[in-house]
Amino acid sequence: MDVTKLLQEVKDGCISIEEAEKKLKILPYEDMGFAKLDHHRKLRSGFGEVIFCSGKEDEYLVKIFEKFVENETEVMGTRATIDQYQLVKKVVPEIQYDSVSKILRFNREIKELKGCIAVCTAGTADISVAEEAAQTAEFFGSKVERFYDIGVAGIHRLLSKIEDIQEANCIIVIAGMEGALASVLAGLVDKPVIAVPTSVGYGANMKGLSALLTMINSCANGISVVNIDNGYGAAYVAAQINRLAVKNNE
Amino acid sequence: MDVTKLLQEVKDGCISIEEAEKKLKILPYEDMGFAKLDHHRKLRSGFGEVIFCSGKEDEYLVKIFEKFVENETEVMGTRATIDQYQLVKKVVPEIQYDSVSKILRFNREIKELKGCIAVCTAGTADISVAEEAAQTAEFFGSKVERFYDIGVAGIHRLLSKIEDIQEANCIIVIAGMEGALASVLAGLVDKPVIAVPTSVGYGANMKGLSALLTMINSCANGISVVNIDNGYGAAYVAAQINRLAVKNNE
Amino acid sequence: MDVTKLLQEVKDGCISIEEAEKKLKILPYEDMGFAKLDHHRKLRSGFGEVIFCSGKEDEYLVKIFEKFVENETEVMGTRATIDQYQLVKKVVPEIQYDSVSKILRFNREIKELKGCIAVCTAGTADISVAEEAAQTAEFFGSKVERFYDIGVAGIHRLLSKIEDIQEANCIIVIAGMEGALASVLAGLVDKPVIAVPTSVGYGANMKGLSALLTMINSCANGISVVNIDNGYGAAYVAAQINRLAVKNNE
Amino acid sequence: MDVTKLLQEVKDGCISIEEAEKKLKILPYEDMGFAKLDHHRKLRSGFGEVIFCSGKEDEYLVKIFEKFVENETEVMGTRATIDQYQLVKKVVPEIQYDSVSKILRFNREIKELKGCIAVCTAGTADISVAEEAAQTAEFFGSKVERFYDIGVAGIHRLLSKIEDIQEANCIIVIAGMEGALASVLAGLVDKPVIAVPTSVGYGANMKGLSALLTMINSCANGISVVNIDNGYGAAYVAAQINRLAVKNNE
Amino acid sequence: MDVTKLLQEVKDGCISIEEAEKKLKILPYEDMGFAKLDHHRKLRSGFGEVIFCSGKEDEYLVKIFEKFVENETEVMGTRATIDQYQLVKKVVPEIQYDSVSKILRFNREIKELKGCIAVCTAGTADISVAEEAAQTAEFFGSKVERFYDIGVAGIHRLLSKIEDIQEANCIIVIAGMEGALASVLAGLVDKPVIAVPTSVGYGANMKGLSALLTMINSCANGISVVNIDNGYGAAYVAAQINRLAVKNNE
Amino acid sequence: MDVTKLLQEVKDGCISIEEAEKKLKILPYEDMGFAKLDHHRKLRSGFGEVIFCSGKEDEYLVKIFEKFVENETEVMGTRATIDQYQLVKKVVPEIQYDSVSKILRFNREIKELKGCIAVCTAGTADISVAEEAAQTAEFFGSKVERFYDIGVAGIHRLLSKIEDIQEANCIIVIAGMEGALASVLAGLVDKPVIAVPTSVGYGANMKGLSALLTMINSCANGISVVNIDNGYGAAYVAAQINRLAVKNNE
Amino acid sequence: MDVTKLLQEVKDGCISIEEAEKKLKILPYEDMGFAKLDHHRKLRSGFGEVIFCSGKEDEYLVKIFEKFVENETEVMGTRATIDQYQLVKKVVPEIQYDSVSKILRFNREIKELKGCIAVCTAGTADISVAEEAAQTAEFFGSKVERFYDIGVAGIHRLLSKIEDIQEANCIIVIAGMEGALASVLAGLVDKPVIAVPTSVGYGANMKGLSALLTMINSCANGISVVNIDNGYGAAYVAAQINRLAVKNNE
Amino acid sequence: MDVTKLLQEVKDGCISIEEAEKKLKILPYEDMGFAKLDHHRKLRSGFGEVIFCSGKEDEYLVKIFEKFVENETEVMGTRATIDQYQLVKKVVPEIQYDSVSKILRFNREIKELKGCIAVCTAGTADISVAEEAAQTAEFFGSKVERFYDIGVAGIHRLLSKIEDIQEANCIIVIAGMEGALASVLAGLVDKPVIAVPTSVGYGANMKGLSALLTMINSCANGISVVNIDNGYGAAYVAAQINRLAVKNNE
Repeated sequence: MDVTKLLQEVKDGCISIEEAEKKLKILPYEDMGFAKLDHHRKLRSGFGEVIFCSGKEDEYLVKIFEKFVENETEVMGTRATIDQYQLVKKVVPEIQYDSVSKILRFNREIKELKGCIAVCTAGTADISVAEEAAQTAEFFGSKVERFYDIGVAGIHRLLSKIEDIQEANCIIVIAGMEGALASVLAGLVDKPVIAVPTSVGYGANMKGLSALLTMINSCANGISVVNIDNGYGAAYVAAQINRLAVKNNE
Repeated sequence: MDVTKLLQEVKDGCISIEEAEKKLKILPYEDMGFAKLDHHRKLRSGFGEVIFCSGKEDEYLVKIFEKFVENETEVMGTRATIDQYQLVKKVVPEIQYDSVSKILRFNREIKELKGCIAVCTAGTADISVAEEAAQTAEFFGSKVERFYDIGVAGIHRLLSKIEDIQEANCIIVIAGMEGALASVLAGLVDKPVIAVPTSVGYGANMKGLSALLTMINSCANGISVVNIDNGYGAAYVAAQINRLAVKNNE
Repeated sequence: MDVTKLLQEVKDGCISIEEAEKKLKILPYEDMGFAKLDHHRKLRSGFGEVIFCSGKEDEYLVKIFEKFVENETEVMGTRATIDQYQLVKKVVPEIQYDSVSKILRFNREIKELKGCIAVCTAGTADISVAEEAAQTAEFFGSKVERFYDIGVAGIHRLLSKIEDIQEANCIIVIAGMEGALASVLAGLVDKPVIAVPTSVGYGANMKGLSALLTMINSCANGISVVNIDNGYGAAYVAAQINRLAVKNNE
Repeated sequence: MDVTKLLQEVKDGCISIEEAEKKLKILPYEDMGFAKLDHHRKLRSGFGEVIFCSGKEDEYLVKIFEKFVENETEVMGTRATIDQYQLVKKVVPEIQYDSVSKILRFNREIKELKGCIAVCTAGTADISVAEEAAQTAEFFGSKVERFYDIGVAGIHRLLSKIEDIQEANCIIVIAGMEGALASVLAGLVDKPVIAVPTSVGYGANMKGLSALLTMINSCANGISVVNIDNGYGAAYVAAQINRLAVKNNE
Repeated sequence: MDVTKLLQEVKDGCISIEEAEKKLKILPYEDMGFAKLDHHRKLRSGFGEVIFCSGKEDEYLVKIFEKFVENETEVMGTRATIDQYQLVKKVVPEIQYDSVSKILRFNREIKELKGCIAVCTAGTADISVAEEAAQTAEFFGSKVERFYDIGVAGIHRLLSKIEDIQEANCIIVIAGMEGALASVLAGLVDKPVIAVPTSVGYGANMKGLSALLTMINSCANGISVVNIDNGYGAAYVAAQINRLAVKNNE
Repeated sequence: MDVTKLLQEVKDGCISIEEAEKKLKILPYEDMGFAKLDHHRKLRSGFGEVIFCSGKEDEYLVKIFEKFVENETEVMGTRATIDQYQLVKKVVPEIQYDSVSKILRFNREIKELKGCIAVCTAGTADISVAEEAAQTAEFFGSKVERFYDIGVAGIHRLLSKIEDIQEANCIIVIAGMEGALASVLAGLVDKPVIAVPTSVGYGANMKGLSALLTMINSCANGISVVNIDNGYGAAYVAAQINRLAVKNNE
Repeated sequence: MDVTKLLQEVKDGCISIEEAEKKLKILPYEDMGFAKLDHHRKLRSGFGEVIFCSGKEDEYLVKIFEKFVENETEVMGTRATIDQYQLVKKVVPEIQYDSVSKILRFNREIKELKGCIAVCTAGTADISVAEEAAQTAEFFGSKVERFYDIGVAGIHRLLSKIEDIQEANCIIVIAGMEGALASVLAGLVDKPVIAVPTSVGYGANMKGLSALLTMINSCANGISVVNIDNGYGAAYVAAQINRLAVKNNE
Repeated sequence: MDVTKLLQEVKDGCISIEEAEKKLKILPYEDMGFAKLDHHRKLRSGFGEVIFCSGKEDEYLVKIFEKFVENETEVMGTRATIDQYQLVKKVVPEIQYDSVSKILRFNREIKELKGCIAVCTAGTADISVAEEAAQTAEFFGSKVERFYDIGVAGIHRLLSKIEDIQEANCIIVIAGMEGALASVLAGLVDKPVIAVPTSVGYGANMKGLSALLTMINSCANGISVVNIDNGYGAAYVAAQINRLAVKNNE
């Protein structure tokens, strides 16, 4: 390693302090930072690697999965098409695909899922995004409870489940036209609510922008919002929160 | 009246049919339409005259009120400032002003209010718009029940009032940032819900556009929407509906 | 039923009042609310069940219709494709499909349609949305009069029909680029006007947003607005209003 | 003048053709173009000079008017404040100011106004923009007929005036929230309609953008649109059209 | 005709004046207006009938053309696809189709084109819209001069044509991303400029909205704007203006 | 309490089970829910009461603070003006005001702050929002570390602080024009990042919407977003997360 | 040439100076300007000709390339599809196509590339736009260094390359959702940064508008922005800057 | 300095290589980077320090200027109000203020301005932004030529100046409603054009967004864009380019 060698040279008097100092300054940050950031990544790596498959070139996608499988590394792909699945499968027969969440997975040994994240949807049309969130959270080691089709247009559906939802460390709320679910839920729980607007709907929903605005403007306390249809992103935040909550119980 | 006179002339042979026909065709539509539309207006006139005061020139505003008072005609002004009130008051001392709803009123004899319209708000900041709606509806002869500050961030406030709200013939829902209240309410009643987005809020509320979009995109059945802060407009529709509901009971 | 049993246990002294109280509090709201809401739903069920078919999974859609047909329950599906129709037809041969309104219907026995809703369009391109509205309103038991292609660019078409339109209890106005029809009509009738912007048009119509804004900003009294292309939603509100108007005449 | 001199030098053999050619090519376009464009401006100058006063520095504004008055040149200023008027008046006592149209004028000798432009407004709140249009058109030599407060929410007002409006060579339609007036009028006349959206209104009118969109999307034939509140711009186009129509009658 | 008959009956004493008056009032406006509006339409009908083909149902489209051909009436269709052309052609073999302008035409006898409209485009990609405009204007009897690909990014192209353009009675300017052409041209001519934004472009052009805004905000005098890609609409206005200009020369 | 009394009556045989059941069903949800929700509120009440002062009527605002002070209850007001402060101070002299964060506070006894929330800003202009966030989080019992003016335009400022930031349980990132800070930070930490766009800036920042969009679209993992300038909202979520993290260490 | 001939006629006395002057004024600007502009174009022509292929008619596209090849002129086409490539290839077999950048090229002799432009991307999905930029810059004679996938979500990737990037005369930064890269880079270099937002992403990225706004609002000094996905446009500006930087070293 | 000291300790054997390595890794980046970035800043410091005064707290602003003046360091402030000027002047009497550009300056010794930047505006209302740009560029050592009021609505004004503009190394184009100037100019020069949209205008200009879109969508080659009204930002980029162009001539 360069730094080690450099310090040895300083110690040995092979180079002057001034020279060493100069060299240190022009060392690419990465060389120094890399180990640290690597360590940093390791800390996080309980979450495993995730590939955003949408739009990835076929060749590239297959190679990534091959590499992970060779290294026996757990890996997950989001937004994968059936075609991508079949392509990867030719090379990596162990790969699994879930057509609802569009998730590709390799080699998920059974691990103990900890804590609890509640994944709630307003309607049935939001389930695809919800499963992306739920399966991502599970992939990251969180236990997930699913509460689907509890939109506010029929508030009794939500009220009948509220006590179970209150048990979670974090609540993911997924809603399209009916972005209102996040507000109602946040008023009934005391844990962080991660709101995911979906592009479900038509007309003035503007492909999810309306639901996004509804959620960002919510009067209820404890809501923060991720991008439209971004189930993965919500799960990432939720898994971070859930990990903080369960860490000290172990 | 011109038409009568014309027909008389036809009868008397003073003018030929061709000439009469020609004259009829170029008669301003208004002359013919007027009576009819007047009659039409009379039908509606249970609602009384309403002036939109905002931006009206002082001189003009005072004259209008003077004219109505001379004719002993009931009249109401919306979006009036205190300055406008004081101006009108000099000439029409009987005029009344409500600083919350910004409504100017003349000569409202006590009349029996009929049926029922529920006026609901999400928060206390929406009350100004709500009072514009409520007092307009009362001016139009509808009985009004007020349910303020029952926003969905604390759903129990709403649920404790729901049975009273269900009694109304029409529900006006007024909400700013928290446009969600319309969806929740519409899922709990079987009467038309008129939703009024308000400009209350800050940031991404975009002066009420966010709430407007939330309400337009609602999944709940039975919701229609009026312009931002348009309490008057909602009351007009609600009073029409309420009148339809009570008409046959008399 | 749990509540009954619980109260019996209280009466029998099997459990203490404190325990009963505690149990009551954690009873899912639904259990208590359900009967009530069910009753509530029954009240509304003169309207029958409606399925939003667009985007529904094939398997799920077929099952729903099967279930309703088994129960001899009247059911309607909106936004159905021909493919969905053919799929459902295999299992439910009695199903009917209207390619203009994209409505699937089962078992509509001839029932008496009551009151009157006027369904008006600005152009011929709005007819698909208009038929969704008209047939939905009929499905909900309302009599419907259709006034198509009476847009304001040729005002005489509208004026020649205005007296018939004035007879209705509620007017649905469907217009795309020419959102102006709602304003003109509302000025000529004294009943509620439900405006439906459509996505018909091109360029700066922004898929219906322009028409939506025109309608929301209308100066005419008595207009409220539903989502772009939402014929179903307008019909729901109109049928509620029409029901209020006819209820007391029976 | 350079070109004259240059040609003289060519004629006199003082410079070679090649040199002259080269010089001609590097002559600033303006030098050549100026006369032509000046001539061009003269052709148009039946319209007189117009100053956009809004935001102009006081000193600059006063100087401009002084200069015109010295030259006995007719001049008009739009969007002038009362303060600007009083400032200019100190130096140019003959200046006139109209507080409705916010127009400053100097020395408008009585000239014969020709042809006819109809200036129509939907409401009374649009009159300020309408007067800017009407007085500009008059300043440019066009005869103007005013038809104010004939918005479509009371269609009979418009219909009673339509035959007079049909007499004009060009129709300017000024409307805020109720952008619909342009469509209705264009369907009833066979002359060009210049539509001016105004910022009058509130809520979702978005300071005139809604009316602009309504007008741009109009289904009626013969409409073109200028910027929000741009009465001056509409008058300019209308005066051009009116001039084309009257030119050959003289 | 009803009115004639009615007047006869009045004259003959068959009905009283009161009755006649009443009947006159409830006569559909259309009956009276019709003749007048018909006459009005006739005045305009130098322009011939134009069908907006886009989205028209096949069956309906074919019938319209059949009817016109039977009546030997000149007719034009805009936004027609090749498929629509081939469909119509089966029934109306004389129909003609231009694949650039997407215009279907029947039976255009050679008529003398009068006056002059200049149709200008910024780029070659705008030619489709330009041909819609040019051929529509010709169909309406106007002579058209085409000036294509003279966008401001190479100002010399425009300057070399400017004197020819100045000859026209009206200038149509068609530009996509480079909406600037309208401003430059309007500064160089003294006739009305009709600006047509096009959806040509990518990225932040927002399907023509950017060009629309550029044109609406132009500082140059004499510009008015029609909808994105609306070549037909621009031609309609231009032909009205051209007709006014040539009328008195005949 | 009604329920207790009711159960006692059941036990005593004073009312039948059927009657009791019926009464239970029509009991306002609130009565039952209240205790529970109250308890729920108590759980959260470590967070204390917070009043949104902006736009509150003077009289109302003073009363609220008086009530809390009487009850010796800790209370905080956000978005308070100096005028509001002086008004409240007259009645509640112990009230404290911070002019940077615009926060009013009463009676904050020194309590131990736990865990750690990092509050970071891109520039100095974001500090007002940051202090609202920081002081709210402290009010809710969280320890706060401030890292101001570490925007990405000078990345070294951020890098020099990154290790301290990594220690926090949750990171609040506040940035206006430069919404990029959230992405960079989220890539360097493994804890949830709550992003707060601010309205700081000019031009195309659109009062914070640009920063909001930047943050919502961030590619970095672990970011969720609250409304523009909503320091309070971010602090609420962060305090919830921090509480989850520290709970089990006690 | 007309001007030459005209001057000869002046010299020969065939026409008067006045006549010559008049003719000069009406000479199309182009005739005079052309040579000059042509010369101007020649100056720039180190950049070669570039065709924007997207949407070009097949026939036209083939002809353009044929013409250039005949003239042995270097030419490049951007946004070409594979189909367009194959079409052109039939006629111009020497044509080359790069499927990543979608660039068609003819006859690029090896020329020395000068100076240095750094082309940086945030992610791998931006590479297509980056290659359009890089290959265009190379076509225009600039040396290019590529730095791909150095987005700010993993800041170490960027920091490890920064010294190489600092060597360039101009930096092109291409980023989609993560528009933040431009700000970070501009803070680390002292050369102009040309930012290219890309349409890569989903949800609230609004096809690149979010990234565009991020970049336009950047706080960092030295950034200017081109249209979404406009790699070509960025390369044009960068090559101009690079040429200015290297010109004087030769 | 820490690094020096550490290396000395390594050399002296006071700490082991491993320890030194570890310490190096956790050294804040800043400590190492600072010198380098400082050096980097020095390289740029030919540009001097610039303070964005708008919204800065008075106390803070005064201190900054005091500090710079103490250090005899040249400094400039943008967007300063007259009030800020008078405040600073009390402490720093040498401070200078330009009320057009809103620029505060200290101690600008006369230095030689090099190269050339052309600053062009469409109208006179854009001059404030133009002077911010021009004076900033001068402060950064660039020679500036001003070309004001040459908007495209009178193209001859621009054409008469074009040859002077072509002499510059970089052109800044400042335009509000008439964003078109950038396109026209970029077609006439072969140097980079930096376009600055301004908020000048009214109606649909949307405070400069329209001009921004016009410029971003320009078809002309060689244009890049900065934020609305951002004269400073344009000058920064232009000065960087100008410096690159003149560097090698010295």
